Amino acid sequence: MQLGVIGLGRMGRIVVDRVLAAGHDVVAFDLDEDAVDAVAAAGASPADSIDDLCDHLGDDKRIWLMVPAGAPVDATLETLEPRLEAADVVVDGGNSNFHDTLRRADACPAAYLDCGTSGGPASAELGFSLMVGGPEWAYEELAPAFDAVATGPAGHARMGPSGSGHYVKMVHNGVEYALMQAYGEGFELLHEGRFDLDLEAVASVWNNGAVIRSWLLELCEEAFREEGSDLGDVADRVEGGSTGTWTVQEALEQEVPLPLIYTALAERHGSRADEGRFSRRLANRLRYGFGRHEVQRQ
Amino acid sequence: MQLGVIGLGRMGRIVVDRVLAAGHDVVAFDLDEDAVDAVAAAGASPADSIDDLCDHLGDDKRIWLMVPAGAPVDATLETLEPRLEAADVVVDGGNSNFHDTLRRADACPAAYLDCGTSGGPASAELGFSLMVGGPEWAYEELAPAFDAVATGPAGHARMGPSGSGHYVKMVHNGVEYALMQAYGEGFELLHEGRFDLDLEAVASVWNNGAVIRSWLLELCEEAFREEGSDLGDVADRVEGGSTGTWTVQEALEQEVPLPLIYTALAERHGSRADEGRFSRRLANRLRYGFGRHEVQRQ
Amino acid sequence: MQLGVIGLGRMGRIVVDRVLAAGHDVVAFDLDEDAVDAVAAAGASPADSIDDLCDHLGDDKRIWLMVPAGAPVDATLETLEPRLEAADVVVDGGNSNFHDTLRRADACPAAYLDCGTSGGPASAELGFSLMVGGPEWAYEELAPAFDAVATGPAGHARMGPSGSGHYVKMVHNGVEYALMQAYGEGFELLHEGRFDLDLEAVASVWNNGAVIRSWLLELCEEAFREEGSDLGDVADRVEGGSTGTWTVQEALEQEVPLPLIYTALAERHGSRADEGRFSRRLANRLRYGFGRHEVQRQ
Amino acid sequence: MQLGVIGLGRMGRIVVDRVLAAGHDVVAFDLDEDAVDAVAAAGASPADSIDDLCDHLGDDKRIWLMVPAGAPVDATLETLEPRLEAADVVVDGGNSNFHDTLRRADACPAAYLDCGTSGGPASAELGFSLMVGGPEWAYEELAPAFDAVATGPAGHARMGPSGSGHYVKMVHNGVEYALMQAYGEGFELLHEGRFDLDLEAVASVWNNGAVIRSWLLELCEEAFREEGSDLGDVADRVEGGSTGTWTVQEALEQEVPLPLIYTALAERHGSRADEGRFSRRLANRLRYGFGRHEVQRQ
Repeated sequence: MQLGVIGLGRMGRIVVDRVLAAGHDVVAFDLDEDAVDAVAAAGASPADSIDDLCDHLGDDKRIWLMVPAGAPVDATLETLEPRLEAADVVVDGGNSNFHDTLRRADACPAAYLDCGTSGGPASAELGFSLMVGGPEWAYEELAPAFDAVATGPAGHARMGPSGSGHYVKMVHNGVEYALMQAYGEGFELLHEGRFDLDLEAVASVWNNGAVIRSWLLELCEEAFREEGSDLGDVADRVEGGSTGTWTVQEALEQEVPLPLIYTALAERHGSRADEGRFSRRLANRLRYGFGRHEVQRQ
Repeated sequence: MQLGVIGLGRMGRIVVDRVLAAGHDVVAFDLDEDAVDAVAAAGASPADSIDDLCDHLGDDKRIWLMVPAGAPVDATLETLEPRLEAADVVVDGGNSNFHDTLRRADACPAAYLDCGTSGGPASAELGFSLMVGGPEWAYEELAPAFDAVATGPAGHARMGPSGSGHYVKMVHNGVEYALMQAYGEGFELLHEGRFDLDLEAVASVWNNGAVIRSWLLELCEEAFREEGSDLGDVADRVEGGSTGTWTVQEALEQEVPLPLIYTALAERHGSRADEGRFSRRLANRLRYGFGRHEVQRQ
Repeated sequence: MQLGVIGLGRMGRIVVDRVLAAGHDVVAFDLDEDAVDAVAAAGASPADSIDDLCDHLGDDKRIWLMVPAGAPVDATLETLEPRLEAADVVVDGGNSNFHDTLRRADACPAAYLDCGTSGGPASAELGFSLMVGGPEWAYEELAPAFDAVATGPAGHARMGPSGSGHYVKMVHNGVEYALMQAYGEGFELLHEGRFDLDLEAVASVWNNGAVIRSWLLELCEEAFREEGSDLGDVADRVEGGSTGTWTVQEALEQEVPLPLIYTALAERHGSRADEGRFSRRLANRLRYGFGRHEVQRQ
Repeated sequence: MQLGVIGLGRMGRIVVDRVLAAGHDVVAFDLDEDAVDAVAAAGASPADSIDDLCDHLGDDKRIWLMVPAGAPVDATLETLEPRLEAADVVVDGGNSNFHDTLRRADACPAAYLDCGTSGGPASAELGFSLMVGGPEWAYEELAPAFDAVATGPAGHARMGPSGSGHYVKMVHNGVEYALMQAYGEGFELLHEGRFDLDLEAVASVWNNGAVIRSWLLELCEEAFREEGSDLGDVADRVEGGSTGTWTVQEALEQEVPLPLIYTALAERHGSRADEGRFSRRLANRLRYGFGRHEVQRQ
């Protein structure tokens, strides 16, 4: 098949490479000309504009967007729109909010597939897990590309109608936050606790047969191997959080309790409170209020 | 009545003053001679040892211990024990663990009353809330002292048998942690949020008729008045935690979920993690593991 | 002064009564004619439409809306709008979302005051706590009405510009959820714990001098007095939750952690999961997956 | 090597089978004669008492206990003790509390290894993850047995001195609770949310390349395959909890915050509150107290 790819950042580049490796043709565009040159050297046909990319693709266009969620997706779609027809298929492989996806799928002249993509750059060789939402026929049409980008046919599935792919990916990320924090709590107790432990060895023995073995635990093992059991100079500051925030927002609307996912998200926010947590500063002061306990000052 | 008081720290001194003010006689002892001199000047009979205190009291001794929880209580009881008989009454007014109280009540030759005392030094004038456990007759005998130390007859009650007074006080403190943290969260959102607010004014208007009005909220108002709406240099560090820890331990044994109380306690522990929270440091590192997100370094 | 009141439900009726009792004139309207007749009997001038109410008020109208949050506020404002001028003042005394308030204040031809009202019907005699947002001059103009509806001059304050009143009330309610749940946890442990306690007596002694005394704790005392220490047939089902949900949503946007408030809200949602919690059903099944523990079936 | 195995329940039987399969000799005892007959049929030498088992083993005894944690371990050790010498090695492969292990290792005349065992009966074929504490020489001596029972040499490691094996296993289980609850929250939102999803398909695509893939997620996939996307009649009731409780208790002592692990444990406790949660019943009643909201009755 022939696939157009717009967006050649870290993830877009992996998509191009995997699709080429599977024997398909790729036409590629990015605002950054160097990125286009690089994939051209790897075997893709370079396009110097979205229009040019569409010219290359002809009828029955299949276009994969791998651009940052939010405004860049809308900007790209606005440029694409005059060139799209009902027989075309556009895939949004980024971390878009499913509300945006519903709106875009509705407005798009082509079939619109939302494709939640999990695995991250570290999965360039293994391939990704793809959660796809949108029309069945369009999903079938793109199957060869999904086979190539995913870990294989088992690594992608159609979740349901438009929006469901990004919805499932959103929830995936909420769970991901909680899993990371859960492992973190366990290792924190082992680190602070009463034995002097080699945390790489702990993670390794757990990864060999324990109930809690997982890919994230393999990444813990790697982290302790590279940083040491005390994590060296790794800071207590966790960035990111948009997909987890959306997960909690949706759960509020659905009235579904998510205490672990919420807490994991709140820990990220708390880690970024550089002036300290106001709530605890007040509790500190209140202990003086009734108990005349000494106020801790900065 | 005549009351022996052992332990003349901040709280013990208030007990002496309130009992004297109610027209009773007090015999007082403390290891610190200056503290004894001070209450003698205020009208109490000074004792220079526990034995001397017992000599003063004669038969049907009524003795109030206001010494730090733990070893000091046991040490005091050990010295007292040879002088105690079945008609005597000992009150432990401190924050003892109820397991210790059960053991001590069992071993004590005298009637033993555990008296949870809430209000703190700030309540010296108003009087305290006293939660008493132990034999009914002993509670009745001590009623004049309880009337004097408490806010009045409504400020003390017998909760049940030995241990129940300290048990109820333990739970009181767990709730107290959660209330402080709950107010703290609300004020944190107001402080970080989208309006520039005078938090003393907020607390004041809430204290006049709002559902959440309380003494702790009056202490919040006082804190903002004295420290400013940004709490000045008050540190993000909350000391203490033993009674809250006991509350959670007991709840684990009873299989009662206490997520708010637990979280409030955990926030105290987290505020004291001077090297940062290991769990979050690991989450930071794991985001690089799969997503190649930049690792935040110290 | 002369005040127009639109909305004569439980809270609106209390507003009318208190303003009348303070010696002011009230013109009142409600879609329910019986409600209008009732306040007319109490001394208010009845209006049979919003137009009629405006005719009564003449220039420099002061109108207090006490209608349900959401669409009813917008519908009322739409009817009012042609009659409003810059010198008029409209007060929204309901639990409106502050985002709606910002939009309405912007669109309203009159000065618009948002007035968070705490205390509930139970505070009819004592008066309310009023958190007011909007133009200073309008707040000053309405001061006599606020004095009457609040507990007095100390029971109302201007928090800041438009929206700030409903914002502070929103946070107040989030804190309220957490306080109720915190007391609930404490009493749950006392109820399930190792002593057989009279919870009314516990609440009573706490309300007399304890650090955690509060109006909510007085309501706990009342609840135990009326329902018994086991709360009789009171169900494990907590309705409501919109203001708490808004609080958490705003905190997500501000990246402020609110673990206690969130958990209290999630407990409400969980209490309404009539088919059981799916998360726990899965955990039950997973224990069989690895451990062959017997699956609990319904 | 020759290994004595005491305790032939589900896990003990797997130990015997795996050690036999690796070509070693096994002498086996259980109070249940049928269990002994069954392993004898499988190739083990049957013992009709602990004394008899020791007679079979002769000098330099290596004995693996796979009996329920608590009193049965102590009872077994009491019977064994007269037969043990310094050159012998006893392995406790059960889920013992590490405090008990420290006490037993101290008292035991033989070398004592604590061996946390993860994987459960479902891992009979793959083998287990073994976390071992105790003297280095004893660990080396038992290596052939550990190789056989574990997934292989990578599936066991010496964590440190006595107690550290059971300590690491305790923390492992705390993390396990949180992971199960985290997946449960994600699937709960997907189940209650706005798309009609095939949860087996979701779990399957996640298990193929997603960041959150794990063995527990494979067990989720199996659960949805066998029970359906709505989990059929699986009840909202999660049994167990002792190792999670110990994890939280230890974290309280170490002052390490474990909000996710605590919450997962508390969800288990909450799922067993057959009369409903008292805390929420009180919140329900309090909403009437101030707001005159209708009380939900059973």
